[in-house]
Amino acid sequence: MIIVMRLGATQEQVDAVCSVIRERGHDPLPLPGEGRVAVGIPALLSNDERIAMEAALATLDGVSKVTQTTSPFKLASIEFHPEPTAVEVGGVRIGPGRFVVMGGPCSVESYEQFRAAADVVKAAGGTVLRGGAFKPRTSPYSFQGLALEGLKIIKQVAGETGLVSISEVMSADMVGTVGEYVDVLQIGARSMQNFPLLIEAGRSQKPVFLKRGPSATIDEFLLASEYVLNQNNPNVILCERGVMPIDRTYTRNTLDLSSVPVLKELSHLPVVVDPSHGTGVARFVAPMAKAAMVAGADGVMVEMHPNPKTALSDGSQALTPSQFEGLMGELRRLAEFSGLAL
Amino acid sequence: MIIVMRLGATQEQVDAVCSVIRERGHDPLPLPGEGRVAVGIPALLSNDERIAMEAALATLDGVSKVTQTTSPFKLASIEFHPEPTAVEVGGVRIGPGRFVVMGGPCSVESYEQFRAAADVVKAAGGTVLRGGAFKPRTSPYSFQGLALEGLKIIKQVAGETGLVSISEVMSADMVGTVGEYVDVLQIGARSMQNFPLLIEAGRSQKPVFLKRGPSATIDEFLLASEYVLNQNNPNVILCERGVMPIDRTYTRNTLDLSSVPVLKELSHLPVVVDPSHGTGVARFVAPMAKAAMVAGADGVMVEMHPNPKTALSDGSQALTPSQFEGLMGELRRLAEFSGLAL
Amino acid sequence: MIIVMRLGATQEQVDAVCSVIRERGHDPLPLPGEGRVAVGIPALLSNDERIAMEAALATLDGVSKVTQTTSPFKLASIEFHPEPTAVEVGGVRIGPGRFVVMGGPCSVESYEQFRAAADVVKAAGGTVLRGGAFKPRTSPYSFQGLALEGLKIIKQVAGETGLVSISEVMSADMVGTVGEYVDVLQIGARSMQNFPLLIEAGRSQKPVFLKRGPSATIDEFLLASEYVLNQNNPNVILCERGVMPIDRTYTRNTLDLSSVPVLKELSHLPVVVDPSHGTGVARFVAPMAKAAMVAGADGVMVEMHPNPKTALSDGSQALTPSQFEGLMGELRRLAEFSGLAL
Amino acid sequence: MIIVMRLGATQEQVDAVCSVIRERGHDPLPLPGEGRVAVGIPALLSNDERIAMEAALATLDGVSKVTQTTSPFKLASIEFHPEPTAVEVGGVRIGPGRFVVMGGPCSVESYEQFRAAADVVKAAGGTVLRGGAFKPRTSPYSFQGLALEGLKIIKQVAGETGLVSISEVMSADMVGTVGEYVDVLQIGARSMQNFPLLIEAGRSQKPVFLKRGPSATIDEFLLASEYVLNQNNPNVILCERGVMPIDRTYTRNTLDLSSVPVLKELSHLPVVVDPSHGTGVARFVAPMAKAAMVAGADGVMVEMHPNPKTALSDGSQALTPSQFEGLMGELRRLAEFSGLAL
Repeated sequence: MIIVMRLGATQEQVDAVCSVIRERGHDPLPLPGEGRVAVGIPALLSNDERIAMEAALATLDGVSKVTQTTSPFKLASIEFHPEPTAVEVGGVRIGPGRFVVMGGPCSVESYEQFRAAADVVKAAGGTVLRGGAFKPRTSPYSFQGLALEGLKIIKQVAGETGLVSISEVMSADMVGTVGEYVDVLQIGARSMQNFPLLIEAGRSQKPVFLKRGPSATIDEFLLASEYVLNQNNPNVILCERGVMPIDRTYTRNTLDLSSVPVLKELSHLPVVVDPSHGTGVARFVAPMAKAAMVAGADGVMVEMHPNPKTALSDGSQALTPSQFEGLMGELRRLAEFSGLAL
Repeated sequence: MIIVMRLGATQEQVDAVCSVIRERGHDPLPLPGEGRVAVGIPALLSNDERIAMEAALATLDGVSKVTQTTSPFKLASIEFHPEPTAVEVGGVRIGPGRFVVMGGPCSVESYEQFRAAADVVKAAGGTVLRGGAFKPRTSPYSFQGLALEGLKIIKQVAGETGLVSISEVMSADMVGTVGEYVDVLQIGARSMQNFPLLIEAGRSQKPVFLKRGPSATIDEFLLASEYVLNQNNPNVILCERGVMPIDRTYTRNTLDLSSVPVLKELSHLPVVVDPSHGTGVARFVAPMAKAAMVAGADGVMVEMHPNPKTALSDGSQALTPSQFEGLMGELRRLAEFSGLAL
Repeated sequence: MIIVMRLGATQEQVDAVCSVIRERGHDPLPLPGEGRVAVGIPALLSNDERIAMEAALATLDGVSKVTQTTSPFKLASIEFHPEPTAVEVGGVRIGPGRFVVMGGPCSVESYEQFRAAADVVKAAGGTVLRGGAFKPRTSPYSFQGLALEGLKIIKQVAGETGLVSISEVMSADMVGTVGEYVDVLQIGARSMQNFPLLIEAGRSQKPVFLKRGPSATIDEFLLASEYVLNQNNPNVILCERGVMPIDRTYTRNTLDLSSVPVLKELSHLPVVVDPSHGTGVARFVAPMAKAAMVAGADGVMVEMHPNPKTALSDGSQALTPSQFEGLMGELRRLAEFSGLAL
Repeated sequence: MIIVMRLGATQEQVDAVCSVIRERGHDPLPLPGEGRVAVGIPALLSNDERIAMEAALATLDGVSKVTQTTSPFKLASIEFHPEPTAVEVGGVRIGPGRFVVMGGPCSVESYEQFRAAADVVKAAGGTVLRGGAFKPRTSPYSFQGLALEGLKIIKQVAGETGLVSISEVMSADMVGTVGEYVDVLQIGARSMQNFPLLIEAGRSQKPVFLKRGPSATIDEFLLASEYVLNQNNPNVILCERGVMPIDRTYTRNTLDLSSVPVLKELSHLPVVVDPSHGTGVARFVAPMAKAAMVAGADGVMVEMHPNPKTALSDGSQALTPSQFEGLMGELRRLAEFSGLAL
């Protein structure tokens, strides 16, 4: 149950709501909103309790409405925040009416490589620059990223090109460091349920780009976002990047595009699709990126490398610069058709 | 390895190719084509054998080219038939340049219900009418379809409205009967590896609409189509209808849209997407149908019922007539944008 | 809801129960039992309806008890038949207190091969002989079985050795033919939801060995068995043979051994495990066969070939004769320890 | 390729091997062993390179043998360490010839609760005491564990009862703290690819109990262990705890018992099975624990709570004390039968 307070409700009014909830044997959960406060009751109520609780709360001063949420997530739910959220960062708006394109290489390999990639993204009209400094690699013998040196390159190149930067952070104790160098903290699919990391990313107040785990249910995904939101950080962007496939022969994952309308129905958070990891094959990125736009996504994250054949990681899924430019052209036309700003 | 003969190659020339293959210790597989014959070698050859075989065959009279196919399927492969296939049935063309919309209820329930659905499909611009007479139902206690009576209704309504009809056949011994009443034989997801049924449907020479099984790999899917093609029946339409989901909470299956570009790369057969079974939820049909078009599909099959609330099966995923009309409008605009005929 | 009648309840008493159900707006489903009749109500009742229905029925003459089943299956449910069922065929008992070992090659290849396999099974103490005459093969270019010739070999060899025979039937129209030659009809994993086949196998009154489909839920599996049971054929043996794997690298499927206790809790039907298909690797058959016994299975079906290297199908998962003998020894000792007859 | 050096090979001899590898254009990877050193070549070599490299290395002084490993993991591989590894901790040996039982509650809730659980484990003959202080919970609104207070209780109770303790650590920065209080560091399924955590746990030199992720392939699982081993920490115990299920209705996961023989064939590391998380249902723990022993596992981890109904987490899968005692009795008899020490 969520009790949404009126705009301008006083702390006393909120306290009164909490008192009534406690008197009835339950713990209130204050849910801080943007200018507006709500109070949640995480516990499951019996039918009788629910009716009685609703009656007791609905007429209190400062209460705007009492809504039921049967979903286990609260702050991420559309009931709590019926308007779609737009996350704004460095002048880029990720949310309704826009389609953001995030591009760049899997890994930052050198200043030259990353600057070349950034120039392509910028020239083609992309607004967000991705690149990994800390790389979660299945094998300890694979390239692990340039670490701090990579972060410095990201910061420099983002500054030079005016692009918003995003990069992955892999553990709670690195949130501060990564946050100093990049604009958006990415939490990778393998870290989706790294709860200390989610909490620390929430505390940082930086925008958080949260990727769905390969076997995560929708509820688990939204509950992971709830860990960030619950730290008073409303700036969460969800990312669908493919789930465990039936068949690993032709694609690396199965891009679950229907998660876009599902997430949009359940939550107010923006949803971005990653067709590069979602398919693992450069040739399939363009059709799936366009399909993502049409299915209602707020953007795509696409891997592009100045020279995919020499890439130190994930070269097979990276677009070449000219493929990236071609895709941007296609997306621009489709966005115009769809009434979206790119 | 596939040896494609020239147009007009004689039987003697084909026999000579087969003889050479046999002399080298392998079994030739004659692959009948449309006016053109090919010969396959299903066995895996060693590198040395392959080179020697190629040299021995390439210069024989009547041989057009010798191609390698590493894929286990032959007749379905793009190597065998580099041009995309269009299946033509009753004046409707399913294949390149067109986007077919197949609509209708899950089950035929009565003449009135089915005629009402057909009128909606026709008026909205759909060309193929679907409806089940024999229903594969998980429980023996669920509605099993009107059987022969349903087939008669389909034939009557298709005749009255001029729509092409499609309906499911569930066993080999019913192929003849169903084929008398409908234009296209549907083989359902649960029957994808019902091999006697595939062979009999192939023999019928009717167009076959083959749905992917919920846990079928791409290779298994294409090999199932090979059973039909191998009976000299080139009229196979592939249908992606969703695979086993990570999460059954919000969708019934996971629509694997990336299978569209994957299938297009491997095979020449047309690919239709079923967003109704693919999601199981009427609200998600429209975004996924549009995404299917953008991803390169040749059409969609959509469930629509004159009154979904009273449907005897699958009501939750059926569109209402007005939702269907709305979807047709959206698809028509997107098709125009994409340079496709609807 | 299931209304179990007393032993010897008259038809009038059953009719009276059905009348009361109809008067209350629901369809009764007569459930024929072994000497005892029950009546099911497949519809979902509201709480109020359920209480009223129970009150109206419980005191009627001939009613033994009224039980709730929330499960969608009826005849397969433990509520309907609280005692475990033993299927008896040719002097072999499959059910409580016993552990049956079914052995033999994937395919019948010749009289000599099959007789050699049968001799090994017999000598080692196995009681059921398996062998495929009609083979469901993923590719049309793979060996498809000896068909009728294979059935004749099975019948001859079973007669000569005194073993009970089991072989797969792939379509409804072949049930009669296969039933003439073998003792137990096997329905393969790919046919688990071939409903015409299930119905026809039910009608044949032959024992039916039903394999779980690779992506079938437990409910779907038991509902498939319900199609057979519902034809007055109580002789169904369930077979767990592995589900779709996370990882196809080292095993062909994931043997879901926990389905054994799950099925035992929900149903009275015997459960046999197939570790050969469940793993796809001969080396893993023995540990999983023993684990199946300990987990509560009523038997195992194991592939063994006189010479696996020359097998025309599935050679990599077939035991050699001496491996089979070794496994039988291990199973015999473990059965003794466990208080089971082999 | 792995070059295993003779016992007592000198550093000069190892350096010579590395030099030859470098001269041929590849990076050597020194693989520290127990008293014996090996050198790996992580890169994939062409057939020609491989033969030439083998010839160049085989005759060098100090080289014992040159083996191929096609597997991506090195230190975890059976090729590198052909004898099964036993991890010894606090007088308990986890490895060949023994079957370890780890028991205890999901979460440490209080001294009284944890001491009561420990007394049951001890009395029944268990040797390792589990209990979570930091709990990875899907929802931020669920009980998150007692944290440091929980660790203190674990240390106290383990000391009082003489049991070896194990508890989960969720992030790299907590490895030091958790390591001060417990004997074995558990890395949970959701953290299997938390690479900073794996590295830090490796550095700690504490025994590491690594759970398989719910959608992790066998290679991914062993590569995760490689991150720990690669830090010169040979004390890794693998834990199978169930993979993503086909069907969440009756079990929480699908316990993949065939992973036991698969892991045993690929790796020398001990393998423990967790039937509590693997099934999620207390009733199914005993059959699956026994099946695990028979399938070749080195032990089980079982959840037990003094009073499951009041458990703050995962109560539905926890055994009662008397169920735990019953299971221990069954395991003891089966271990005796199997020639294992408990």
